[in-house]
Amino acid sequence: MRALVLDEELQYVEDYPTPTPASGEALIRVRMAGICNTDMELVRGYMHFRGVPGHEFVGVVERAPGAEVWEGRRVVGDINAACGVCATCRAGRHTHCPHRTTLGISGRDGAFAEYLTLPVANLYAVPEAIPDEVAVFTEPLAAACEILEQVHVHPTDRVIVLGDGKLGLLCAQVLALTGCELTVIGRHAEKLDILARRGIATLHVERNATVQLAEIAGSADVVVEATGYPDGYATARALVRPRGTVVLKSTYHGAVEADLTMAVVNEITLIGSRCGPIAAALRLLERAAVNVTALIEACYPFDAVLTAFTHAGRRGARKVLVSFDAAALREAVW
Amino acid sequence: MRALVLDEELQYVEDYPTPTPASGEALIRVRMAGICNTDMELVRGYMHFRGVPGHEFVGVVERAPGAEVWEGRRVVGDINAACGVCATCRAGRHTHCPHRTTLGISGRDGAFAEYLTLPVANLYAVPEAIPDEVAVFTEPLAAACEILEQVHVHPTDRVIVLGDGKLGLLCAQVLALTGCELTVIGRHAEKLDILARRGIATLHVERNATVQLAEIAGSADVVVEATGYPDGYATARALVRPRGTVVLKSTYHGAVEADLTMAVVNEITLIGSRCGPIAAALRLLERAAVNVTALIEACYPFDAVLTAFTHAGRRGARKVLVSFDAAALREAVW
Repeated sequence: MRALVLDEELQYVEDYPTPTPASGEALIRVRMAGICNTDMELVRGYMHFRGVPGHEFVGVVERAPGAEVWEGRRVVGDINAACGVCATCRAGRHTHCPHRTTLGISGRDGAFAEYLTLPVANLYAVPEAIPDEVAVFTEPLAAACEILEQVHVHPTDRVIVLGDGKLGLLCAQVLALTGCELTVIGRHAEKLDILARRGIATLHVERNATVQLAEIAGSADVVVEATGYPDGYATARALVRPRGTVVLKSTYHGAVEADLTMAVVNEITLIGSRCGPIAAALRLLERAAVNVTALIEACYPFDAVLTAFTHAGRRGARKVLVSFDAAALREAVW
Repeated sequence: MRALVLDEELQYVEDYPTPTPASGEALIRVRMAGICNTDMELVRGYMHFRGVPGHEFVGVVERAPGAEVWEGRRVVGDINAACGVCATCRAGRHTHCPHRTTLGISGRDGAFAEYLTLPVANLYAVPEAIPDEVAVFTEPLAAACEILEQVHVHPTDRVIVLGDGKLGLLCAQVLALTGCELTVIGRHAEKLDILARRGIATLHVERNATVQLAEIAGSADVVVEATGYPDGYATARALVRPRGTVVLKSTYHGAVEADLTMAVVNEITLIGSRCGPIAAALRLLERAAVNVTALIEACYPFDAVLTAFTHAGRRGARKVLVSFDAAALREAVW
């Protein structure tokens, strides 16, 4: 099958072996996949991943031995394939199963290929009303929903989302649904405009925004650090009030020089936040409570996936998609 | 008055001006004071403090203009002198008041002197049953209680206290009261023995304990990082389970190289923890629920305070006290 393979570097190959579903797994034909910053980090060495990247997808179940009711269904998936029987899984934390593989990130080939496999238990049927180019946002939208799974954001809270990247824009839209007093701080006017058009307050800053942000230092009950950069932590720490909460969303290759003593003095809570509830994300998409099509930068046919990655790597690029459905691409209006 | 003064270095002086209580404040004659690691950090440059250090004390109210009922009472004190009227104070977070001074740490002379001043609102009368050498532990014990103020520690939780320093020993004893499955990890067998004698499980490790700790990696629901060293964070992060909580207690001069990405991937919660509830600490001391006298390393008369600091700086030293009461010192049996 055709696949994008990360070895020493990214390669487009036409003869990658089609995966065989293991017991309990389904074979899924990918219809569309999205490029995430994590994919770019994988190329830089994050997780030392080798294989087919890609964890944002919508596809159709081609084969599901023993669970044939799924065959032909359009699905998205929880990317964490857990063992289901260890203490962590039994405690309800399957996304942290120490034996897990993660689609396109760790130990399991991902979605930038004609086919992928996932456990049937990880699949979620996509309601008909949700088109592919919306459904493909389910996984990152679930990651945004994870914030509300972890932190009780009150309607009266002052919340700051730091970063107007793809994940930041989704986090902002989900947080806005709480009614909280929300400000999104970013460096890209055109991306902030997507939120401004939805009535969300934004603040456009330059890269070194220390002076510009000084007047709101210590003002936020909750700060979501979604810059994707190591230096986002220091800014988030400066913006949150004493005893406030910083949600850490950025993952990158490497460590950060962090002033943890100031977190102690100000009794800050830092919460790492990763994958989230797929079903909740699908509900929000079905209700059109979140606008994801405005986040689409471009959609490439799969044989141009390397070009798509180059495009996704441009500073300020929004979501770049790849599609296996040439007809859909021709009709696309976003 | 006699006082220990930190300028370029620590100096014992006999002619330091006796403080005058401001409106709403009391003048307190210090009976006994304890040396905290934070005091040692102040000498290393932490908080850029200049003046009289010392924030662990028990004393007698000498003068309290307008609140004469306090005069003659033996007291301990909340070390955070807040404005009481700002938004932070009104939100119930007076220990984080941006206008606060902190006894012997920031903007206010402290307890290594014959007299100190504190707002009357910060004072807590010490029950008669609590002797000075126990009462002087109120402030650090309150800091240990702060953990339970911030984190719901369940009786079924696996909890690790990292560090057998003075604060670690207090944190351990407070956490043990919850019934949780507690292990204290430290480098000093004789200090761990204090806890072992109270039925608390301990694990003696060498400085580079990575191999020794590998088998309990990822096992703790809650880890309290009380090593006092920057490298404690990495160990705490390795010991806590996914979605577990690390309570950060260490404050030190300087930053730390932290792998925040792994905190994101494992969705760890990090909670900075500082000063705690004085009244709760006094209740625990009155009920003898915590043993603090076993933590006393030595007590020096105040004119030997510089020697006391040298002693407190020895590796593995327990709590070193200084006393203004020569008679008490002669009678001391601990």
